[in-house]
Amino acid sequence: MSSTQDIDALIDMMAKLPGLGPRSARRAVLHLIRKRALLLTPLADTMQTVAATARECLNCGNVGTADICDICTANKRANGEICVVEDVSDLWAMERSGAFHGRYHVLGGTLSALDAIGPQELRIPRLIDRVATEEITEVILALNATIDGQTTAHYIADQLEGQVQLTSLAQGVPIGGELDYLDDGTISAAMLARKKL
Amino acid sequence: MSSTQDIDALIDMMAKLPGLGPRSARRAVLHLIRKRALLLTPLADTMQTVAATARECLNCGNVGTADICDICTANKRANGEICVVEDVSDLWAMERSGAFHGRYHVLGGTLSALDAIGPQELRIPRLIDRVATEEITEVILALNATIDGQTTAHYIADQLEGQVQLTSLAQGVPIGGELDYLDDGTISAAMLARKKL
Repeated sequence: MSSTQDIDALIDMMAKLPGLGPRSARRAVLHLIRKRALLLTPLADTMQTVAATARECLNCGNVGTADICDICTANKRANGEICVVEDVSDLWAMERSGAFHGRYHVLGGTLSALDAIGPQELRIPRLIDRVATEEITEVILALNATIDGQTTAHYIADQLEGQVQLTSLAQGVPIGGELDYLDDGTISAAMLARKKL
Repeated sequence: MSSTQDIDALIDMMAKLPGLGPRSARRAVLHLIRKRALLLTPLADTMQTVAATARECLNCGNVGTADICDICTANKRANGEICVVEDVSDLWAMERSGAFHGRYHVLGGTLSALDAIGPQELRIPRLIDRVATEEITEVILALNATIDGQTTAHYIADQLEGQVQLTSLAQGVPIGGELDYLDDGTISAAMLARKKL
């Protein structure tokens, strides 16, 4: 079907996106083709722009369209706090919560002996640099509460021991969480970290 | 976050695609940005091409990159059979099954009194034209087994009564289907259409 090969190629590419499969890719592409003036053309143009401009911040690893990202260049965010996250998606989640007003450091993953990912593969040396050079008062380790995440947090804590105040996110019952549906680990953590009323 | 507005715009557009939401759109866009040379640029280019070339076949309503689609132009498919489907996705499903070797007619929806969709809103007049002008021996009504689909099938059958042989897809137990999990309607249909061994 030579003349539809572009459409087939588009479907194949879309099907490879996380969260999409062949079926949903076909639906999405048909939807885009039906509204091509309204949806497909703008989407294609925006993709071109992003493909041409998107890059990782040389300082913190955040994704943006400049060599140094908006957060790193924003003076009002230079409050001496660095929030260390595994991934840009975690940074975005933090930003949505609006709970943090300092700067970030995106590791780009976690230490993993199995996958042979050591400190050099992540942005850990750069983090140690930043703590030494920027005026950092507190490093908040906001890594996922997974084994790899916590291993990485411990490693970073060892490296920065004594140079700066180290904190990590509180663990406990999520807001709106029901004990009955929580795993034992979370309940024990919440019990250990219980606070006075 | 001015310099990331393109990325945000891309996420918003992706989030509007069927089967995607804000969360999966963010994941997809991050994935694309990480592999922008490998994935994002080719995807953007292909989208541009499709946006520029995709159109509906003037004859049958199939989606392609020419005024008359590959199936309508393929002589070996001019076997006098027209398979009438609601939507291009149904045509694609038929093609994947490889069970049909004739040509198609995509209605572009079903008759619906509620949504004020009459024969003129669909490609029904064009179908009646085709039956009159092309050498059609059989019209296979492969419409969805929904109320609207069957209403539309009945309407078309009335219009083409006597001019051509009319057939519809068999209804019954799907291959691999377990009676226990089938709805009563399907079981009764299969019972009524039972065949000699």
